[in-house]
Amino acid sequence: MAESNEQVVRNKQVLLKKYVNEGLPKESDMEIRESSIQLKVPEGCKDSILLKNLYLSCDPYMRNRMKKLETSSYVDSFQTGSPINGYGVAKVVDSTHPNYKKGDSVWGITGWEEYSLIKAPASLFKIEHTDVPLTYYTGLLGMPGMTAYTGFFEVCKPKKGDYVYVSAASGAVGQLVGQFAKLLGCYVVGSAGSKDKVELLTNKFGFDAAFNYKEEQDLGAALKRYFPEGIDIYFENVGGKMLDAVLLNMRIHGRIAACGMISQYNNERPDPVHNLMYVVGKRIRMEGFIVSDSYHLYPKFLELVIPFLKEGKITYVEDTAEGLESAPAALIGLFTGRNVGKQLVVISHD
Amino acid sequence: MAESNEQVVRNKQVLLKKYVNEGLPKESDMEIRESSIQLKVPEGCKDSILLKNLYLSCDPYMRNRMKKLETSSYVDSFQTGSPINGYGVAKVVDSTHPNYKKGDSVWGITGWEEYSLIKAPASLFKIEHTDVPLTYYTGLLGMPGMTAYTGFFEVCKPKKGDYVYVSAASGAVGQLVGQFAKLLGCYVVGSAGSKDKVELLTNKFGFDAAFNYKEEQDLGAALKRYFPEGIDIYFENVGGKMLDAVLLNMRIHGRIAACGMISQYNNERPDPVHNLMYVVGKRIRMEGFIVSDSYHLYPKFLELVIPFLKEGKITYVEDTAEGLESAPAALIGLFTGRNVGKQLVVISHD
Repeated sequence: MAESNEQVVRNKQVLLKKYVNEGLPKESDMEIRESSIQLKVPEGCKDSILLKNLYLSCDPYMRNRMKKLETSSYVDSFQTGSPINGYGVAKVVDSTHPNYKKGDSVWGITGWEEYSLIKAPASLFKIEHTDVPLTYYTGLLGMPGMTAYTGFFEVCKPKKGDYVYVSAASGAVGQLVGQFAKLLGCYVVGSAGSKDKVELLTNKFGFDAAFNYKEEQDLGAALKRYFPEGIDIYFENVGGKMLDAVLLNMRIHGRIAACGMISQYNNERPDPVHNLMYVVGKRIRMEGFIVSDSYHLYPKFLELVIPFLKEGKITYVEDTAEGLESAPAALIGLFTGRNVGKQLVVISHD
Repeated sequence: MAESNEQVVRNKQVLLKKYVNEGLPKESDMEIRESSIQLKVPEGCKDSILLKNLYLSCDPYMRNRMKKLETSSYVDSFQTGSPINGYGVAKVVDSTHPNYKKGDSVWGITGWEEYSLIKAPASLFKIEHTDVPLTYYTGLLGMPGMTAYTGFFEVCKPKKGDYVYVSAASGAVGQLVGQFAKLLGCYVVGSAGSKDKVELLTNKFGFDAAFNYKEEQDLGAALKRYFPEGIDIYFENVGGKMLDAVLLNMRIHGRIAACGMISQYNNERPDPVHNLMYVVGKRIRMEGFIVSDSYHLYPKFLELVIPFLKEGKITYVEDTAEGLESAPAALIGLFTGRNVGKQLVVISHD
């Protein structure tokens, strides 16, 4: 059946069936399809690699890619009827690219499928440190880790002693922002949406305090309780009402790193924010950022984080779904807060 | 009647009768009172000066001072029953301060009255360049000029060729931001609230284009028409719906200098802003600033502006109300857009 001697294998894939412009996506918006693939870069494909995907990363920004985006956005819509793509960890099975050889481990943009043929890989990093769990390259040592690093250090410009607030604080990015802030000598409070997550924040990640935002009638008053002198740095993962409550509680010359606004992604019309007047009087700097603008800092990031990790000064909590079939539910779970820590999907362990 | 040989004269004053927490202030919220004052710094008052006030500056930020501010703000509430204070231009009548002598011209914080005794003057600048209209020290060469300079150059970090949008563009600050942007080689569009003001923008201040925001059904569409490629820099004087429309039209890495939000000052509850999600994807930096943080740059500012002014490269439009009695109406007029250009009040010409 194969045109060459190379093996042809089953290639299960996760496809987006139709665009979901508003509301919570459902598993039935995606489907699992069985395809097949030849375990070799096809003839004539220069600078290409064939990947065996090991771990897939479920990330909030993917919600926007499930929409039919009309205006130019920083991300493209997924192609319906084609495998979803996103960050993942993979092994090189075959390569015609001079920088990659069979057996290399990589992380970066790949397909939600068992095997992916990547032509002209522009968004892949070769994994040099393999003496750490490879799953960490979907989180701590991958895109979310770089997001925490860039947003906190480059955008927030933190100083020792700053009062730092992190929303969605037990998530892939938030848990690291909190730990970076503690390592720098800041006072750090996080919020999350369940008792378990709140306990993780103080018991595992070392936050000074944490609260369940779902149990607060008045978010502004809750923040006032944890920050009687106000907030110097807000790492924004949530948007909407939370942002409004934060603006009320910011200190003069406060900084807000706008990383994402997950509370808003399923809304048809975003929640209103009323308190922007405080941006003027309090001289607040609110700045959006996208991690892919800062990948040139990745080596510097690893230099910081790998020693911390090996010395046990940084820890990382993952929420692992087994099997490609579990990927749609795992992705959707991000938007109901089902995951505890970094959500990833295991396709294969080697 | 006087305790010394020094003259005692009438001192008309403008007082705030009661706090106006919402809605448009009325003339009847203020009153004119006749007091008297001795034209000499009283015995025992060290480091004090007695000013004859010439010109008063009407500025939008004063609206917030008319409220009973409960939380700490960057400004204090006015004291009811006492003269309003604000920026103005004055002549020194008497001084026990080593830096000031009789006959000096100054600008800075003074009282809304004919004469003011200033103890320990911390917010006054001695006027060194007197070969320009002294009224300019309420605008072009005073606080509004410094606001335009700081906000545009320090906060927006403009580059030649940037697409710049200024709201409230014919006002004390806006008219200068537009001229600074043109001098730097930017493309500049301004909006204002009347045909006359819009004509000033293009005919007098050299804006590339201008529009009357009151004639636009859809502000987002209007901005799209003037900025088909989007806005690099927005100098924010307005807030609310305008800010929402701007966020929709910002370019990647755009900058918003939040100088003020005059559309919001009379509202009980500020207008909602919905489009903050664009801050993330477009990596927008929105930054509030207060001119008084930057007065150390005043000499640098004068070095830039005085030559431009003398060479006719910068012009400035003032709206002059005659007499202290006209001050309450002039101040209120800011919030209905009655003024064309910088609103000031003449108490005395010398």
